[in-house]
Amino acid sequence: MNEWMKNVRKTEPYVPGEQPQVTTVTKLNTNENPYPPAPGVREAIAAVSDESLRRYPDPDCRELIRALAEYYQVEENQVFVGVGSDDVLGMAFMTFFNSEKPVLFPDISYAFYEVWADMLQIPFQKQPLDETFHLRKEDYYKENGGIVFPNPNAPTAILESPSFVEDIVSRNPASVVIVDEAYIDFGGESSLGLISKYDNLLITRTFSKSRSLAGMRIGFAIGQPALIAAMQSVRNSYNSYTMNQTALSAGTASLKDEDWFRDHIARIQNTREEAVRRLAELGFSGPVSSANFLFVTHERVPAREIFEALRREHIYVRYFSKPRIDNFLRITVGTPEEMERLYTALKGILQTY
Amino acid sequence: MNEWMKNVRKTEPYVPGEQPQVTTVTKLNTNENPYPPAPGVREAIAAVSDESLRRYPDPDCRELIRALAEYYQVEENQVFVGVGSDDVLGMAFMTFFNSEKPVLFPDISYAFYEVWADMLQIPFQKQPLDETFHLRKEDYYKENGGIVFPNPNAPTAILESPSFVEDIVSRNPASVVIVDEAYIDFGGESSLGLISKYDNLLITRTFSKSRSLAGMRIGFAIGQPALIAAMQSVRNSYNSYTMNQTALSAGTASLKDEDWFRDHIARIQNTREEAVRRLAELGFSGPVSSANFLFVTHERVPAREIFEALRREHIYVRYFSKPRIDNFLRITVGTPEEMERLYTALKGILQTY
Repeated sequence: MNEWMKNVRKTEPYVPGEQPQVTTVTKLNTNENPYPPAPGVREAIAAVSDESLRRYPDPDCRELIRALAEYYQVEENQVFVGVGSDDVLGMAFMTFFNSEKPVLFPDISYAFYEVWADMLQIPFQKQPLDETFHLRKEDYYKENGGIVFPNPNAPTAILESPSFVEDIVSRNPASVVIVDEAYIDFGGESSLGLISKYDNLLITRTFSKSRSLAGMRIGFAIGQPALIAAMQSVRNSYNSYTMNQTALSAGTASLKDEDWFRDHIARIQNTREEAVRRLAELGFSGPVSSANFLFVTHERVPAREIFEALRREHIYVRYFSKPRIDNFLRITVGTPEEMERLYTALKGILQTY
Repeated sequence: MNEWMKNVRKTEPYVPGEQPQVTTVTKLNTNENPYPPAPGVREAIAAVSDESLRRYPDPDCRELIRALAEYYQVEENQVFVGVGSDDVLGMAFMTFFNSEKPVLFPDISYAFYEVWADMLQIPFQKQPLDETFHLRKEDYYKENGGIVFPNPNAPTAILESPSFVEDIVSRNPASVVIVDEAYIDFGGESSLGLISKYDNLLITRTFSKSRSLAGMRIGFAIGQPALIAAMQSVRNSYNSYTMNQTALSAGTASLKDEDWFRDHIARIQNTREEAVRRLAELGFSGPVSSANFLFVTHERVPAREIFEALRREHIYVRYFSKPRIDNFLRITVGTPEEMERLYTALKGILQTY
């Protein structure tokens, strides 16, 4: 072994869903939005000038932060932006989770929480979801060094109410509670209203799902100014300019087209409700989804086998070979046409069992 | 104080040069390239499709890494890309500098090294440059947990030779040595040739300066595959997708226009040599520059006063209120027209003393 290797950081990286480089795949595996972003987004990107390319972008990201503050009716000093919500969450872990006490998050949840904790040497304790895959709020009353959970949760798609969230936040004044609302736009009630009341609540969001901008890597957090200032300080101690000019322009443009946004959210909700019915007809069931994906299990056929059979037919969904959820599939809600392909393929596969 | 604040990470952020939001400023303070990027860059950005926007980018950044590997005649597994060389350096600090022994870097150097070390709780020891502002290689023979220095150094613009670099690298087989070649394209001899010989040498570069793409945030590192794999693992434990689609496309397009690149480097070199002469006539002197900036002191007038007077005339240069260099100005090489404005302003200012 090379001598320098003994000082290399120990990591167990997150493995994202596969990104095939061919376009013949029906891709329902990474919860991307099946519709394009608002037309103004591409225009804004194409309009980025040579002058903006050669110069450093605004390190304070004022254009995008102003647009977000206006959209969510908060102050500019209550908004943090980053390279996707992964960057925002990673910075939040670095900023707030520096206690000796364990950080708490659900056992079935976004797998990156554990990866960040490992990488940053943050102690943590996973709290088991109940048998219906709901969080148990009592699990988050114990002493801790911070709390993080997605709402709706992933990969279960289950939403908890703002009063549920408030209960956890109010019982933990000495910890920062991060509520990861990556999927909230697909019909969940946000906990944003609690921000003004609790100085220890940080809500994170992303443009990757509801705003069809996974390719641009834009995420943000909203919280009281002291939380945001602490995160800005960590960001400015890592990279003064995390957001490139095209991301700043694209994000701002997206926020300006509310009609497009609402219309496409509604389409996805409709397709989701249709999918629930159609999948039930095929023998699938799962929790009520408040996200742009479904978490389903089949009455007869093992999830892994369905996953592999779909893959052979160039339909990608997500399968997690993990305790408790290894008989489930996470299926992104695509266009009606993509979903028809899925139903047809599933019908064929299930017939062979 | 809020209770959660006691667990907030302690930071002392880097302060970048001012980015005025008005265009009436002659901006010679952040070493941006005064010329636009190659015309193919804007075309590539404008050509990014809605499909690419709504999908996650390739987490492996193959398009850009392939182009870099080809350009530098190395293997693809010898290249790491990030959100500017700050992201690349930050990841390298996280990946390699995990020893109890101090990391070594020059006392007068890129100020971010100390910021990263503080933020990541890495012990460090600054090594004083000699009285001519050169690194003393003997300072880097002692036991250490890693070494990092820019070549050419900033803000001095002084270049050390590959044999100087090799001496340090070869004497430190148990440490990773990072050579930050952000400014090497402006006429310095790179140490890239040493990569094949030393498994502990990592060279970092940026598209921000020589390729006129500060606004797109693209940096990279080249080293042996084991070094690159360790960095990839840390990156994938922080954010699977740091590079957005426009950055991947812009970077790749930039590498394809070698004529544009060479032509504009030559223009900057010519302007730099002219600037040395013109500034000498005005009473300025400083070390020989191998970068796109000059580090100069005036025979009579204190640097801070010149800095402030220039600022009043809307000409921004960089001034560091730090021991040993507080009588120097760092002046970015702009277009000939921008430099004429500088000379004229300086003439006026110096006459009043």
